[in-house]
Amino acid sequence: MKMSCRLRGHKEWNVRASTLARNTYNPIRDVIETLQIKPNPKKSYIPLSVGDPTAFGNLQPSENIIDAICDIAKQNDSRNYAPTIGHREARQAVAEYSAHQGMVSADDVILCSGCSHAIDITLSVIADAGQNVLIPRPGYLIHKTLGEGLGIVIKYYDLLPDQNWQVDLESLESQIDENTAAIVVNNPSNPCGSVYTREHLKDIVDVASRNRVPIIADEIYEHFVFSDHEFTAISSVSKDVPVLTCSGVTKRFLVPGWRLGWVIIHDRQNIFNKEIRSGLMSMATRILGPNTLMQKALPRILKETPQSFYDDTIRFIESQAKLAYQELKKTPGLRPIMPQGSMYMMIEIKTSLFPKFDNELQFISKMCNEQSVLCIPGKCFNYPNYMRIVLTVPEEILREACVRITQFCEDHMLKKLDNDVVSIVQGEPTRAASKKNFQKNIA
Amino acid sequence: MKMSCRLRGHKEWNVRASTLARNTYNPIRDVIETLQIKPNPKKSYIPLSVGDPTAFGNLQPSENIIDAICDIAKQNDSRNYAPTIGHREARQAVAEYSAHQGMVSADDVILCSGCSHAIDITLSVIADAGQNVLIPRPGYLIHKTLGEGLGIVIKYYDLLPDQNWQVDLESLESQIDENTAAIVVNNPSNPCGSVYTREHLKDIVDVASRNRVPIIADEIYEHFVFSDHEFTAISSVSKDVPVLTCSGVTKRFLVPGWRLGWVIIHDRQNIFNKEIRSGLMSMATRILGPNTLMQKALPRILKETPQSFYDDTIRFIESQAKLAYQELKKTPGLRPIMPQGSMYMMIEIKTSLFPKFDNELQFISKMCNEQSVLCIPGKCFNYPNYMRIVLTVPEEILREACVRITQFCEDHMLKKLDNDVVSIVQGEPTRAASKKNFQKNIA
Ligand SMILES: Cc1ncc(COP(=O)(O)O)c(C=O)c1O
Ligand SMILES: Cc1ncc(COP(=O)(O)O)c(C=O)c1O
Repeated sequence: MKMSCRLRGHKEWNVRASTLARNTYNPIRDVIETLQIKPNPKKSYIPLSVGDPTAFGNLQPSENIIDAICDIAKQNDSRNYAPTIGHREARQAVAEYSAHQGMVSADDVILCSGCSHAIDITLSVIADAGQNVLIPRPGYLIHKTLGEGLGIVIKYYDLLPDQNWQVDLESLESQIDENTAAIVVNNPSNPCGSVYTREHLKDIVDVASRNRVPIIADEIYEHFVFSDHEFTAISSVSKDVPVLTCSGVTKRFLVPGWRLGWVIIHDRQNIFNKEIRSGLMSMATRILGPNTLMQKALPRILKETPQSFYDDTIRFIESQAKLAYQELKKTPGLRPIMPQGSMYMMIEIKTSLFPKFDNELQFISKMCNEQSVLCIPGKCFNYPNYMRIVLTVPEEILREACVRITQFCEDHMLKKLDNDVVSIVQGEPTRAASKKNFQKNIA
Repeated sequence: MKMSCRLRGHKEWNVRASTLARNTYNPIRDVIETLQIKPNPKKSYIPLSVGDPTAFGNLQPSENIIDAICDIAKQNDSRNYAPTIGHREARQAVAEYSAHQGMVSADDVILCSGCSHAIDITLSVIADAGQNVLIPRPGYLIHKTLGEGLGIVIKYYDLLPDQNWQVDLESLESQIDENTAAIVVNNPSNPCGSVYTREHLKDIVDVASRNRVPIIADEIYEHFVFSDHEFTAISSVSKDVPVLTCSGVTKRFLVPGWRLGWVIIHDRQNIFNKEIRSGLMSMATRILGPNTLMQKALPRILKETPQSFYDDTIRFIESQAKLAYQELKKTPGLRPIMPQGSMYMMIEIKTSLFPKFDNELQFISKMCNEQSVLCIPGKCFNYPNYMRIVLTVPEEILREACVRITQFCEDHMLKKLDNDVVSIVQGEPTRAASKKNFQKNIA
């Protein structure tokens, strides 16, 4: 075979990964891997780190879901390609299930492979590289991972820990600029466990409205609210601000591995119609939608799951929240913040009382080494000096974890006011806490 | 609530879709929509357009697959999040199933949500915006849709219709430049139905090797080869060129809606290790992998499906290919090219013999209007004057489709040499064919 002799490619192999790949970075995985955490082999390992309600096996999906999958698998029409935005019956079922969000029709729903995928296509349509998107601090950094991969600039607005993690509205508005493409609101919140009132959501929407910035609502924990609280969809309080709501069956139906999520387009003023709606459709063609077993089962999953199933799950999580809060409230050096929903609790670590640890990462790493309890450091949520625990583990395990956490704090906290360096029980102090700080924190 | 008065965002709503969304464009959908095709209400509609082997219901998956899904759905460990690249057991099963590709271990496998997703993450890791990727012409334009969305420049190398669609190696090499990030090789081919020999694959790999360009192998139709042909994985003939092979269960196992695909990393010289491997892992974290029912069922699907199931499917498609070829070979104005595998056939339309149609799009549109048979125009594969038919429809339907296609050609072909305008049977001619052209084409 005669060939042109001039070399047109490269002389040496030099294959680089794209910017997209290099910028797609998962802080939880990265921080946890960097810490090189080793549990204590003498104690059973308790990962309070995994945001998977099914990880321990104590929470199981409702029977009807499993039956639906089996029935559907046998149906001849359950295996062919679906339309890229999903089967109409499934989208219709999502529309009905989401009526609390405001008027929703099947045409407003795009089925996705989990809520992560919903957020991925939402961010990738709404912002170009160089534009910015505002996300909460503390927050679950999936929006950062997905957004920064795409070259979107992530900016943060603050939540107020002493006001049940409400949005600091001034902080929010101060972050908006002419390149702001969207505000992400995550309610109920991971990691905070906060649930916003209708009034507070209105205040947030007002900021967005005044500045003409669309909202991305991450409501994967919708309906995960404890007694005396109520879930309000942010789309339901918006008159003009267009909202893209991302959710799915992951958490509420206890099937995270089954990857069924959705985006719902709320656009009462037809602001999205020009480009965003068709942009979302285009993005959906990239991977051709979620598994059709799930799509076909979806109407039954959403309609036939008994109320008692939802109630049981929430009642359990709420009682776990109370248990952990009661136990850890008494723990020296910690300040748990009682959640109002979702399945997490944030706990402040009064780090000045643990001067041997430079930061909460060292605290958490050491706690796992000694007590075999792993929590997620606040750094993973852009919020140092805190840690997040997961509430969905079995009661006995949560109780044991609280005992061990408390033991760890007692073992490592400064013991005396007058000699704060030598009084540390174990190991070398790496930072000395001042008396003043200690007194402030103990209060 | 006191608020800063200065408006920080926009005065008017002006929400644009991102470049990514605007550049993600599916030519098949677009062309078909633009044609506004209406079948003839008096004839049953036969879409020979849909690349879904399960669309007509005549081809069904093997029983064991359906049983596996039911069993798995009942297992408590089938619902939790999997590792983002997939459960190890499932990746191990893919590695064993893919042993014909060369040494593959579970660590080389990344599970994806269908082969489309596999191609999506592969392209998005291997090339940055502005770099180029070479794809075949004619070709299934998924690589264009996904690549151009990401800002990757798509360049084409030619296939040779008269040499069973082998790659024109000179054309391939001439397209390579210093910005070429990868060559896509699709074997067996959609839309051509070609199956490359080991020798031809070696020639392709040689071009890549000389120019130090990695290969993306789209082998979603692996093993879909007719008797007297053999499937060779391109990775198995490469000594140095790193290959990313994209495949899945979509076609061979007749479950396109179930969305289980994979990327396999072949990298004998550790060229990808620096960045590409970890880049693929990062990309997999974006949507957290495919449905875990499918992941857990995968070992059973890949190992327990009986050989007879595969054989039956291929035997059926081959006999359909022969049927369509025999019938359409006799059709005036058409030149079918007998496929060697996959599930499609390309047919040349001697357009100069149909002067009333400006191009194959009008031919196809009119054929659907009159005969209710829809084929995909070559334009959708970047190859005018051809059309693609799908071979997986039931035999009687394929036979009827051939009759109608032939009828259509007879109705619309130039009838006389000496008066080529008035002799057209129906409608207004839009372009007159020259005598010369006619004679050339009739030969
Ligand atoms: C706030 C938030 N958004 C999105 C997701 C992703 O959900 P999915 O598993 O459906 O992709 C999670 C998962 O933990 C989450 O906590
Ligand atoms: C050549 C080729 N590659 C990839 C795909 C996508 O396959 P999947 O349905 O697994 O995403 C197809 C589907 O038709 C195809 O023909």
